[in-house]
Amino acid sequence: MSYEKLNSISYIHPLLIVISGPSGVGKDATIARIKESGSSFHYAVTATTRHKRSGERDKVDYHFLSEEEFQQKVKAQHFLEWAKVYGNYYGVPKEGIKKALEQGQDVIIKVDIQGAATIKHILPDAVFIFLMPPSTQELANRLKQRQGQPSDEVDLRLNKAQEEIESLHLFDYVVVNHKDKLDITVSEVNAIVTAEKCRAEPRLVSL
Amino acid sequence: MSYEKLNSISYIHPLLIVISGPSGVGKDATIARIKESGSSFHYAVTATTRHKRSGERDKVDYHFLSEEEFQQKVKAQHFLEWAKVYGNYYGVPKEGIKKALEQGQDVIIKVDIQGAATIKHILPDAVFIFLMPPSTQELANRLKQRQGQPSDEVDLRLNKAQEEIESLHLFDYVVVNHKDKLDITVSEVNAIVTAEKCRAEPRLVSL
Repeated sequence: MSYEKLNSISYIHPLLIVISGPSGVGKDATIARIKESGSSFHYAVTATTRHKRSGERDKVDYHFLSEEEFQQKVKAQHFLEWAKVYGNYYGVPKEGIKKALEQGQDVIIKVDIQGAATIKHILPDAVFIFLMPPSTQELANRLKQRQGQPSDEVDLRLNKAQEEIESLHLFDYVVVNHKDKLDITVSEVNAIVTAEKCRAEPRLVSL
Repeated sequence: MSYEKLNSISYIHPLLIVISGPSGVGKDATIARIKESGSSFHYAVTATTRHKRSGERDKVDYHFLSEEEFQQKVKAQHFLEWAKVYGNYYGVPKEGIKKALEQGQDVIIKVDIQGAATIKHILPDAVFIFLMPPSTQELANRLKQRQGQPSDEVDLRLNKAQEEIESLHLFDYVVVNHKDKLDITVSEVNAIVTAEKCRAEPRLVSL
């Protein structure tokens, strides 16, 4: 091994970044901000049967599907992982991720904790980031502010969020998302990506 | 465990960052630039019996000691590690590092590969960064430019640098130091520090 050789093999391994965290923590807002900052990730667009929230765009923020369409894709093994979360189906399409990784492009997947656990099983060498609220109170505030969220739904998600701390051992990193400091959240995620690129022993992921 | 609790224990574990690499790779220049950028690290100042290079300041860049003074400190167990490298003694004083860590301050240690191996043995949970030249040719150029460096000294260091690649397994990260891109080197080191602060399972170091 020479320095020339070592240098030439650095940076060629694409990363698979899994961003997860409790409902309401700000996964969508964080990823939207990363997109705005012009990073060259492939963003896996999650398919879902849930209703579109105001401002969300089909095929950009989510693939909005009917339950029948979703089930067809499940049968066709279209998803890397899928699950029913709070009464709606969510699935991470496999094909785009596979192509991006083959082309050496880094991939960001956004997924709930249950989905992160499944992906950890399939791809243990992905980079798992747990997006954490600064406090349960702050998480409650954010969930209550969501358009048309009934209070029993908020309670359900808060209880679940409490349980989800127990899944921390699945994750490599914890990033605290202070709502008014999204730039810090994004800079920490970017730092994690940079550091992972510098790992002496690169993580190898392929589908 | 609650989000409040989890948040309160983040960021309190100080890091011990060990920056190493072959002679001539730019360890001193990198650390000088990190200092300039105003980061709040404790910098362990290495003690050495080698001659002062032009521009170097005693007690700031190195503690310049006579061989007798050095040996006294060895006997007094003053050093975390010490070694003879290219005919001169180098030692990393323990006390300042211990105090800084106790006060929760992150520490940067600059050390040759042999020293990094010793520290890895004593403190396996330190963060080990291997500073790498872009090529052996570039390393040769830098060594030749050093004031008063005879050509057999350059050859000795180049041969050693070649061997030192074999110690890469000791390191967590590899950062390529392009001489004209020191800002990138420093931003990568800073990213590694930020990412390590976000680790779900903090590294615990104490002396």
